Order: sequence, then structure tokens, then C-alpha cells
Amino acid sequence: MAKIFISTVPFGDKNRLPLEQIEAAGIDYFINPLGRKLTEIELSEMLSDFDVLIAGTEEITDAVMDKAPKLKLISRVGVGLDNVDLIAAEKRGIKVSYTPDAPAPAVAEFTIGLMLTLLRSIHISNSQMHRGEWQRHFGRRIPEVTIGVIGSGRIGGRVLRRLKAFGSPRILVNDIRPNKNVAPDLKLEWVDKEEIYSEADLVSLHLPLTLKTKNMIRHEHLSAMKSDAMIINTSRGGIINEEDLVKILNKGHLSGAAIDVFNQEPYSGPLRNIDRCLLTSHMGSMSIDCRTRMEIEATEEAIRFIVGQPLHGLIPQEEIELQRQNL
Amino acid sequence: MAKIFISTVPFGDKNRLPLEQIEAAGIDYFINPLGRKLTEIELSEMLSDFDVLIAGTEEITDAVMDKAPKLKLISRVGVGLDNVDLIAAEKRGIKVSYTPDAPAPAVAEFTIGLMLTLLRSIHISNSQMHRGEWQRHFGRRIPEVTIGVIGSGRIGGRVLRRLKAFGSPRILVNDIRPNKNVAPDLKLEWVDKEEIYSEADLVSLHLPLTLKTKNMIRHEHLSAMKSDAMIINTSRGGIINEEDLVKILNKGHLSGAAIDVFNQEPYSGPLRNIDRCLLTSHMGSMSIDCRTRMEIEATEEAIRFIVGQPLHGLIPQEEIELQRQNL
Repeated sequence: MAKIFISTVPFGDKNRLPLEQIEAAGIDYFINPLGRKLTEIELSEMLSDFDVLIAGTEEITDAVMDKAPKLKLISRVGVGLDNVDLIAAEKRGIKVSYTPDAPAPAVAEFTIGLMLTLLRSIHISNSQMHRGEWQRHFGRRIPEVTIGVIGSGRIGGRVLRRLKAFGSPRILVNDIRPNKNVAPDLKLEWVDKEEIYSEADLVSLHLPLTLKTKNMIRHEHLSAMKSDAMIINTSRGGIINEEDLVKILNKGHLSGAAIDVFNQEPYSGPLRNIDRCLLTSHMGSMSIDCRTRMEIEATEEAIRFIVGQPLHGLIPQEEIELQRQNL
Repeated sequence: MAKIFISTVPFGDKNRLPLEQIEAAGIDYFINPLGRKLTEIELSEMLSDFDVLIAGTEEITDAVMDKAPKLKLISRVGVGLDNVDLIAAEKRGIKVSYTPDAPAPAVAEFTIGLMLTLLRSIHISNSQMHRGEWQRHFGRRIPEVTIGVIGSGRIGGRVLRRLKAFGSPRILVNDIRPNKNVAPDLKLEWVDKEEIYSEADLVSLHLPLTLKTKNMIRHEHLSAMKSDAMIINTSRGGIINEEDLVKILNKGHLSGAAIDVFNQEPYSGPLRNIDRCLLTSHMGSMSIDCRTRMEIEATEEAIRFIVGQPLHGLIPQEEIELQRQNL
């Protein structure tokens, strides 16, 4: 019978239900034994004998698929597809499913937490206090600043709607396909990205990583921001050029940044030395409820595939076209 | 002409308008030259020749008033009156004014920031990342937890109303005078404090410091909380017994705490050594807009008094009675 390899970790950690579902279906499975994101080579070696991959954000390249002749389904726990070579998968007849809605509430709430932390220097004060330094920082409230949101889809839309409770900031939004009904109770200004860079006090990114968004925010864009502006990235590492962000912050430009995602994870680069850069370890979607929902959805999809039921979470053809256009 | 002593610092720092108002009125003023909260003795020595005090949270005792024979008005920048001996002031005919509404929006928004930070371990991850450790923490979202709010006045009420945007958590509220209309769109359960201690995942305090609330939360109350519960204090140091909080956290009880106010400020006690205790330096009201509004309101009151206009911000007689009953 078909077997499942689970590369994403932790899995079934806070709620064992997804593992119990696989066991109840009588399907064999094997979990990534390294307890961390696998390299391309590690994944290639481990995947060779499996039919279905329940995947995280590790690189699933043409070379990986080459070493996995039995692979028929990649079931992504999450929404981003930047790590999957969709063209190679299509060519080999490997189906790809994902769980696009499940992580959104967790990432949106996390983002609001990062916004409030940056605006009030909570992270800086906490570090100082633990070092025994008492320094009172002035901050700004949400209704007093201009907020720029790039990407108004599942996550960006939820961020916008949660801002409503805090009064009425000026909100600038950019999206390649603006959804004018995304937050009906809020007055949104749909603008181009350049206007967000130059006008916003707080910029938050809610975009997929594609060849078009990779390095989208470089030195010139960060320089165009106000000297006391702040930037938040809970989407994917690489959308902001990390080296440029380090340079800009080291120059004293920008009053803060909150970075949850990195080019290479685990991250241990030079942003570590910048106190006003709030760093978290790719935790945006890591609320127990959302993570469990993602794992269950991806697991049920894997089981449906193996027992021959119709799939629910196949990625839209558009995602494949998007990768093709970028090549 | 009457002279103003400004003990609260910083003052006129982000917005010079309150100082300009005093200058425009042709009134002499002197600002606390030490740049930090004054001790009782320092204040006594500095205040001797002044008619009006624009005050922060320093102790304004009977002994201080003894050394300030000209003092006729204490104009508090803020809402708490725990630091002012209102009985002594009344006895001497010294009027007391305050700015009760101005800080509330800043403290409420700050509190929501602390809630989200605790729930998602943002402070812990940030400390670990800056040390070069990558550990992904699971968290909980607001709609998944039971929130307990003690005190539903100006600040607590705003906290409740801001929670609305995050979905529908179970919310337990306690107040000596419940205001059932405080958040009309939310389903609130009005309960006693004991039920909050035992049921809530996240407890937030929005109370004045009085002899009745001093040490209100001691070892027995913290012990009654769930082992993974969290507690937030943005009200006044001393409402939670600090030594007991240290003991409980060192035992491994409670999954987090966020403390913005301390028995003695600047604080440099043993909470510093507890990573999951988020510490900030009495910054709840420190948004530029709210702080400026507080300073302007307190300054205008001082000027009105000196030029002989009716006062706007006199404290209600009830505040004096409250102190009298506690004695």
C-alpha cells in the first residue's frame, strides 16, 4: 500500500489527530527524523520509497522528484508554493495540494502583535529591562500612523479587518488584483508600491514568494521609506533583500523592523545584532488551532488520494502558470 | 506671580506646546532637573517656593506639602491618584486635578500588544533569535482563549472593545461597579475575581492602586491560576505582589507575564532573570499623542488656576472619600 513521508516538523505535536487519522486508515508513514527543515539532499535520500509527501517549506525540486520515482502527491501544510517546482511536478504527473485558508487567521493576528510591538518599542524595552536598563520609549498608536499593506489576499485582508478595532489610521493598500471589498468598513487608499514606501509609517508584506516578488524590496526601496518608518515581513524570506535591510538598519535608517521569515532558516545572520529589529522564528502560522487545522487538512488530502477519493485541496492551475511565466 | 514646578519627566519632549502655553501666559516654571522620578525628599526640597505642581507619579505626601507652604494646586498628568495624599491636600486647601481620559487609548492599545506578544511568545523568540537560538513556539489566538479583565473602566473598557476585532473569545469581567454597557457587541460574563483566577488563560488588570487593591494578587491567587495562564499588569505596581510573582514564575507556574509597572521604578529586581516575563518600563500611556494630550490638559488646568478661571479637571470628591475609607 502507498506510504506517506511527512517532512514538515513539528507534526502531530500539539494535537495527535492527524497521525491518528493516518493510522486509522491503515497507512504507513514516516516522519522527518531530524526535527528540522531538510536540505534538498536529505529530502532526496529520505523520499525515495514514498508515494505521498506531506510537506513543509523545504525545497522540493526537480532533482528531489528525480530520486522519488513513486511520488504521486505533494500535500503542502500551508499556503506558500515557492518551495515546490510546480512545472517539474506537472511534467511528472505529481499532483500538488495545499491548505490556503488555514494559516491566515494565525498570521494575521501575529502581524497585529508585531505592529503593536514595533509601534511601542515593546521588544526594545523588554531587552533593556532584562539587562537592567530603564528607559521609557515614546510610541505611536495605530490611529496616529499611516499603515501600508502590500498584498490584500487571505492574510493581508484579515490584517486590514483586524485594524478596524483600533480606530481609523490612514491605510494604503497595494495588490496586483485589488479586491475593493476586502474590508468594507475601512477607508482604504489603493496605491502603487512606491507610494507605500514613501508615505507609510508602517509597511506590512502579505505576498507569496515568486520570481517577481523575490528581492522586491531592495536598498533603493528601503531608502525611500521615512527615516522613522517600520517594516514587517511575515510572508517569505527573500521578498526583502536581507543584506540591504541589514545595511539600512546599520545606517540608522528606519526606526524598527519585524522579521519572521528568512532566506535561510534556521536564521543566524547579522540582524541578530540589531536591537530594534524584532526577530521571530517563522512563527506566523504557529497557533495551535491553525497549525492543527493545516495538518489535518493536508493529512486528509493525503488519505483521500491514497484511498482513491476526489481531492479537495488541489492548487489552482493559475499557480502553475504563475511559476511558468516567471521562468 | 504664581510659579509652576513640573516634576513629571519627560515633559514637553515630543511636543513643546505645553511649555509654550505656559510661556505665552507669562508664567514662570521650573522642570525637574534630575530627569527621573523624584524621591519624597527631593520633591520636598524642590517644591518649597512653588504655587502649582504639574505632577507625575512621585509621592506627594503630607510631609512634602509641609515643605511647600505656597502650594495651591496639584495638577496630575495622568489618572492614578495613589501617589497623592488627598486627605492632606484637602486639609490644607490644596486642590487636585487630573487628566483621567487622556491616557486610556494608549494603555488599552499597549495592553492588546502585550496580550498578542504573550500569546505567541514573541518576546521569548526575539530574545532567543538575538542569542542565535532558533526555536519555533506554538501559541494561541485570542478567540481560542478565555480572557479575564479585572476593572472595566476607562482603560479596561477600551481593552474589551478592541478585542472585538479578533473574533469571539470567552471574556470574563470583574468590576466593583459593573458597567453592563461597556462593550455592547461582546458577550461578557460578569464574575467574581476568584472565577477569573481559576478560569482565565489570560488575566489583565485595569485598576487604580488603593489600599484595597494593594497586594490584591498574592501567592494564593497566582497559584489558583492555570499552570499555563498568563497575567498582564499595566495598572500600578503593587497590585500584584512582586515577590510572590517571582516565586511563582521561578517554580514554573504560569506560561508568561507582562509587567509594565513596579513597586519601585526604575525597576531592576529579579523578574529581570525570567525570560518569559515580558518587562516594559511603565510605558502604557507613552504614546506621543496621549502623552501630549495629558501634558496639555494638565498645563491648561494649571494656567486656568493661576489666571483665576474655573477649573475643568478637579478630581471627584469620591476619590477623596475612597482614600479616607481606606485609612
